[in-house]
Amino acid sequence: MLVEFSIVPLGVGSSIGDSIAKVLNIVNESGLPYKINPMGTVVEGEWNDVMELLKKCHSVVMDTSDRAITTISIDDRKGKPNRIEGKVKSVETRLGKKLSK
Amino acid sequence: MLVEFSIVPLGVGSSIGDSIAKVLNIVNESGLPYKINPMGTVVEGEWNDVMELLKKCHSVVMDTSDRAITTISIDDRKGKPNRIEGKVKSVETRLGKKLSK
Amino acid sequence: MLVEFSIVPLGVGSSIGDSIAKVLNIVNESGLPYKINPMGTVVEGEWNDVMELLKKCHSVVMDTSDRAITTISIDDRKGKPNRIEGKVKSVETRLGKKLSK
Amino acid sequence: MLVEFSIVPLGVGSSIGDSIAKVLNIVNESGLPYKINPMGTVVEGEWNDVMELLKKCHSVVMDTSDRAITTISIDDRKGKPNRIEGKVKSVETRLGKKLSK
Repeated sequence: MLVEFSIVPLGVGSSIGDSIAKVLNIVNESGLPYKINPMGTVVEGEWNDVMELLKKCHSVVMDTSDRAITTISIDDRKGKPNRIEGKVKSVETRLGKKLSK
Repeated sequence: MLVEFSIVPLGVGSSIGDSIAKVLNIVNESGLPYKINPMGTVVEGEWNDVMELLKKCHSVVMDTSDRAITTISIDDRKGKPNRIEGKVKSVETRLGKKLSK
Repeated sequence: MLVEFSIVPLGVGSSIGDSIAKVLNIVNESGLPYKINPMGTVVEGEWNDVMELLKKCHSVVMDTSDRAITTISIDDRKGKPNRIEGKVKSVETRLGKKLSK
Repeated sequence: MLVEFSIVPLGVGSSIGDSIAKVLNIVNESGLPYKINPMGTVVEGEWNDVMELLKKCHSVVMDTSDRAITTISIDDRKGKPNRIEGKVKSVETRLGKKLSK
């Protein structure tokens, strides 16, 4: 399944880049396919693997803040592997043009 | 932590009440404190307990559809138990009036 | 359409109740049907009316913070008025029991 | 402000690529900076410009379906233009390495 998430610590100021960097380090070393965008991170994997990763990421943010808001969106579709590459390509093929990524 | 979630099956028509009913039956029997609203269900519990529940709910929806979109929002705050009742009361106290619930 | 939203200011500490109280005051005076829950506020109305309200709410939070994260979920269904009451009742009828609200 | 959104039509089957293609055509012609990812589209602009675009996108999906779920996440930060490019670069600089995009 495809999963996009973001984790926002509260009470640490309006700049949260340190926290995002720690999270992306964990994602980068997880071995799961991922892609970052300006609003979140998309990973692809089975429920247990993804949720274990998200728990680690959420925990590392809570280590240095009293409160965090974590948002998770799951798109689960049977029999469709490698959607982290395929979904965007599929819509470009349909439109017959390249889009901004 | 407080967790709101919703699970939307695709490919089963525009009425998804059967699917919501199955999910709420599982939530109702989970033993975790919960409250439903017109857009989702809020549960309160530890990460592992909540995620085990959400996996069950997501799975039961996938049992009868090829695709589902699951959205999860987490508000985790240290040292604040019973927020499923407390958050709304706290804002009513602050405003000095009852709000629509 | 049904719209749930939440607005989280960053850089103002981990307690954001003041900000939520200001927002709910605006919602309460808007005249749109609404219901609050521990994770957000659900309103019902046409696109323009709802978005005008959300712009006011987002702006009042930005008045006292440098950054805010606003999350909006829309469930738009043709020919279904008063869903803010009807959706929850419908699922209770289906299950044949009352749920926690 | 940065805004990520996705629009999911219900009742049209589990493949929703036609609908996504129509939406991305509108985004592509809007003139607003945007980036697509496997889970949604990020645009950058002022509240009114972005919401006018999202209304068009939501409407075009409702033209061919009875129900749609639209999710919108806003990250609004004072005095920070061009964040659609800057946010990802900033976290890469912090980590001292390139990430998957």
